[in-house]
Amino acid sequence: MKLYTYFRSSAAYRVRIALNLKGLAYDAVPVHLLRNGGEQLSEAYRAVNPAGLLPALEDSGAVITQSLAIIEYLEEMHAMAPLLPPDALGRARVRSLSQTIACDTHPLTNLRVLKHLKGPLGLSEEAKMDWYRHWMKEGMAVLEAQLARSADTGRFCHGDTPTMADCCLVPQVFNAQRFEIGLAPYPTIARIHDHCAGLPAFVAAHPAQQPDAE
Amino acid sequence: MKLYTYFRSSAAYRVRIALNLKGLAYDAVPVHLLRNGGEQLSEAYRAVNPAGLLPALEDSGAVITQSLAIIEYLEEMHAMAPLLPPDALGRARVRSLSQTIACDTHPLTNLRVLKHLKGPLGLSEEAKMDWYRHWMKEGMAVLEAQLARSADTGRFCHGDTPTMADCCLVPQVFNAQRFEIGLAPYPTIARIHDHCAGLPAFVAAHPAQQPDAE
Repeated sequence: MKLYTYFRSSAAYRVRIALNLKGLAYDAVPVHLLRNGGEQLSEAYRAVNPAGLLPALEDSGAVITQSLAIIEYLEEMHAMAPLLPPDALGRARVRSLSQTIACDTHPLTNLRVLKHLKGPLGLSEEAKMDWYRHWMKEGMAVLEAQLARSADTGRFCHGDTPTMADCCLVPQVFNAQRFEIGLAPYPTIARIHDHCAGLPAFVAAHPAQQPDAE
Repeated sequence: MKLYTYFRSSAAYRVRIALNLKGLAYDAVPVHLLRNGGEQLSEAYRAVNPAGLLPALEDSGAVITQSLAIIEYLEEMHAMAPLLPPDALGRARVRSLSQTIACDTHPLTNLRVLKHLKGPLGLSEEAKMDWYRHWMKEGMAVLEAQLARSADTGRFCHGDTPTMADCCLVPQVFNAQRFEIGLAPYPTIARIHDHCAGLPAFVAAHPAQQPDAE
């Protein structure tokens, strides 16, 4: 398997965690989001993924895009270390938590949006960061509420083994910390993050551990 | 089953199509996104869904949020009229197409974002609509490229039966048409939309057919 990745892409980071949790080897193909006007926008990469976004996974001659679709695919192909619970309601909960991050939070704060705010919209650096922090905090407050109110939350987002939701939570917290958003209002997120952060699969997926880290 | 819905919410519209395709009866509970400062932000609805977003599905005493998580849940619980293909690569493709809409396109153009652009950011109505059209066109161009280049695309997004991807495509086109974004650059999307639009499950899910339509 070949993973098109960038060390700091949080969607790629999710998939790296999933691959590591399942013990699957892969070749990392770095795509630099900032160099050469953004290598993800090059013709070569657009031929892999027309969206010009990371990550993309190549397996069995096919290309799969979208981090959650990739994780679901890995889950279906490799039964070990299941990333979804055995019951339908549990799976729905894990998917919903994951989508709170992958649909409602991250898309508003990713690179192409920040570039659009500064370029076409002409926002100041400060106004851009206000936007970033606003949607990050909004998303994390919702995730905290979802986690704190449920008896299904355990040492991880769902029970006591890692799921797709933890693959999403940890990169989200990495982004928050990078931009100095304190975790005090989100004690459940912070607790789950700290528990995950020490585990080998999460450590090996961390941006600082990637071959293209700067 | 109880579906918290708003006639023009495109995420709720996705779930209504899925319910209809599977022939599942449900009680619609209208939540008015504009009345009373937004009923989705009320304490009563936040108790159902802390995100303050639509839709939410109540089933067997549990609440499921996030449109794609709800559709996957319906798919797992009700085998008739499958909304995902039988093979893992096919399922990955349908999930990826769905997420191109649900993660990369719609979250940038939904009501709370448009309100934030006009309120805190102080953008003009014109600049707000420029934003809307920019991300809609960006997302639809990617979806068109994904559909046009694949031999898996049939009368529907994937083959010749409707899937979760069609549940996402049709509401997206409804939004585009509502804001006068022409479909000429997206012939495959337009073709699939027109094919779906005449089918009873899609007709019955249309905003104009809802009990809360205005």
